[in-house]
Amino acid sequence: MKGEFEFIGDIRKAFPAPQGITGIGDDCAIIPQQNGWDTLVSTDMLVEGTHFLKDDITPYQLGWKAGAVNISDIAAMGGYPTGSFLALALPKKLDSDWENEFLRGYGDISREYGFPLLGGDTTASPDGIGICITVFGKAPHGKSLRRNTAKAGDLICVTGTLGDSAAGLEAILKGLPRSRETEALIGRHYLPRPRLTEGQQLAASPGVHAMMDISDGIGSDLRHIMEESGLGAEVDVRAIPLSEEMTAFCAAFGSDPVRLALEGGEDYELLFTVQPDSDPDLKVPHTVIGTMTKETALVWKGSDIDYCGYRHF
Amino acid sequence: MKGEFEFIGDIRKAFPAPQGITGIGDDCAIIPQQNGWDTLVSTDMLVEGTHFLKDDITPYQLGWKAGAVNISDIAAMGGYPTGSFLALALPKKLDSDWENEFLRGYGDISREYGFPLLGGDTTASPDGIGICITVFGKAPHGKSLRRNTAKAGDLICVTGTLGDSAAGLEAILKGLPRSRETEALIGRHYLPRPRLTEGQQLAASPGVHAMMDISDGIGSDLRHIMEESGLGAEVDVRAIPLSEEMTAFCAAFGSDPVRLALEGGEDYELLFTVQPDSDPDLKVPHTVIGTMTKETALVWKGSDIDYCGYRHF
Repeated sequence: MKGEFEFIGDIRKAFPAPQGITGIGDDCAIIPQQNGWDTLVSTDMLVEGTHFLKDDITPYQLGWKAGAVNISDIAAMGGYPTGSFLALALPKKLDSDWENEFLRGYGDISREYGFPLLGGDTTASPDGIGICITVFGKAPHGKSLRRNTAKAGDLICVTGTLGDSAAGLEAILKGLPRSRETEALIGRHYLPRPRLTEGQQLAASPGVHAMMDISDGIGSDLRHIMEESGLGAEVDVRAIPLSEEMTAFCAAFGSDPVRLALEGGEDYELLFTVQPDSDPDLKVPHTVIGTMTKETALVWKGSDIDYCGYRHF
Repeated sequence: MKGEFEFIGDIRKAFPAPQGITGIGDDCAIIPQQNGWDTLVSTDMLVEGTHFLKDDITPYQLGWKAGAVNISDIAAMGGYPTGSFLALALPKKLDSDWENEFLRGYGDISREYGFPLLGGDTTASPDGIGICITVFGKAPHGKSLRRNTAKAGDLICVTGTLGDSAAGLEAILKGLPRSRETEALIGRHYLPRPRLTEGQQLAASPGVHAMMDISDGIGSDLRHIMEESGLGAEVDVRAIPLSEEMTAFCAAFGSDPVRLALEGGEDYELLFTVQPDSDPDLKVPHTVIGTMTKETALVWKGSDIDYCGYRHF
């Protein structure tokens, strides 16, 4: 089997997007409509044993999170969600309480973020649970924030704090004792809150050039903006925003906060670039962590480790 | 775990479609646009061990068939395809030839039927292969053929012949000797050709009231039109169109052709209803197999078996 990004590269070469459409290579496809809006579409597959362990997540949390992972791609373009489709492959031994609770979690996030379920598919699975969600959104024509539009000299920014979800996962997998801190981190892992409003505000802010959501950790995600924009980046690891809970967790259990923040993934925060003179006017709370550069390399200032982020295969 | 249709019924109750949108319960969702067209969307999940056995289908055939299953839902509404999204969960042990051949099959059908790949997702699977495709189409506003619009007295019609795919599957699973007949049937199983043009012509024909594609066998599929339309049906099993190859196959190997035709599924032919006086004017080759009735029961004339069609769980 090929590496994930090599395989995606092959698919992209074999399936060039039709004229006017942004196809493979960003958080969402962008399909212009005749009414002055673009349609945004993203699809994500969650597989038991790869993305989650059934006994470690409640069906309510899984339903919420499956929706969150997808709506985060709409947030990443600065779009407005319009609807969703849900395909489920379920083992026969699942009980109907599991199904009801999954639907309750999905229902809660779809109502809160405004992406009603419009259709789907259900089928039996001989092995684990498979979930595939396709989510739709819209954005004013040409106004979606993409990965390939960063400029050299742009400041690199993130919303929120990074690594909380990864620390929460570590607490779950290692069965660490629960405290106020670990519960908060676990909550960020199970019930992420994508930055939909912030994404919309950033897409409407002058000087914001490129954006994506942080799903694999910026050690991986930032490389997509670099590659798509043909640029490099310099990131000061000392500037990475870390929560108090995460810092306390790492101190207590001997974990490396920077590694969790850069390689852990599943933060569903936003990573964006902005021209320096526009930064002071941004209404969205954020942290500047570095600068886009002309050299096509990723330099971590303040560390001699080459952080890479999560790879699916 | 609940039965498939009970579970879908629960989802439908929990997620009512927004005003103006046709959501769960038909081949595609129908989303009106401002340009005089409706957007059609359908999603299908194919799971190794449920929908296919990896050693019994080539990756090229699987790529073609995954596309066919989906585009058949657009055909079922009389729509025009516009694009597709492909999510793949793949075991790490797959070789890259498999991936390339799968993409070649998907590429061939997507070019032939006109649904370019616009995006997707790739991920690792700890067990078998999972494929989720979301396909888009369009139809003039309000002109899609739905399941809930049959009228009492309508003739029930099908395109092509039924049961060929099921006979082909039987030949594969039982390892029956290959002949011209079995090869033709196996070809219909592996490389189905959805009735896209025919669906478009039927949607533009006066008097055609309801339509869906035949994926589970009409023993199951016709019940959807009955339930959605609040009607019953009388079908003459002696009128079911059977191919010469399928009849010869059943004679040679002792299979029941009517059971294969009504319960086998995966024909990807069209099942539609038309008012009797419009039938002679239809340009699309078809066979009349029965009549929609006011009684909410399915009566098989010429047989005392209650055929049911394929159920996923």
